Amino acid sequence: MAERLSAEARNQALSGLSGWTETPGREAIGKTFTFRDFNEAFGFMTRAALVAEKMDHHPEWKNVYKTVDVVLSTHDAGGVTALDIELAKAMNAIAR
Amino acid sequence: MAERLSAEARNQALSGLSGWTETPGREAIGKTFTFRDFNEAFGFMTRAALVAEKMDHHPEWKNVYKTVDVVLSTHDAGGVTALDIELAKAMNAIAR
Repeated sequence: MAERLSAEARNQALSGLSGWTETPGREAIGKTFTFRDFNEAFGFMTRAALVAEKMDHHPEWKNVYKTVDVVLSTHDAGGVTALDIELAKAMNAIAR
Repeated sequence: MAERLSAEARNQALSGLSGWTETPGREAIGKTFTFRDFNEAFGFMTRAALVAEKMDHHPEWKNVYKTVDVVLSTHDAGGVTALDIELAKAMNAIAR
């Protein structure tokens, strides 16, 4: 099982993850992705869903038209793990 | 443009829409769909996204693993319109 990252390791990982920040009040990381329209936003979600399913690690996310709010944490570990960092990186790559 | 439904018309439409209720504090309707797993939940979202895009009327929705929380309202009309009722019906049909 993936181990919960220390605050130090979490911050170091976040420093290399454009746009991701700690989620206030939770041990989680989040990012709001903004696209041109719904087509592009849902296209992003579809590609990210395939990655998430393959990793067996899933996001919490909310979509309103062209924005997608994502929150990542690892429930079983009670915080942020390497799985969240990996999924965050993959999402950034897809959105690029 | 679709016209905002009166409270009476909204309630009548809701009575025929299994699982949909008024969203507290907003002029909107909502439903939480629960599936077996992420595959089924995201499959529902994908089918609903195609309907929404074709209607040019989009949901606010949040997905956490096997649940999808949907809120529908028509921004331009400041409330619930026939478009929301139509999309809600389509989502129920997809989830069935």
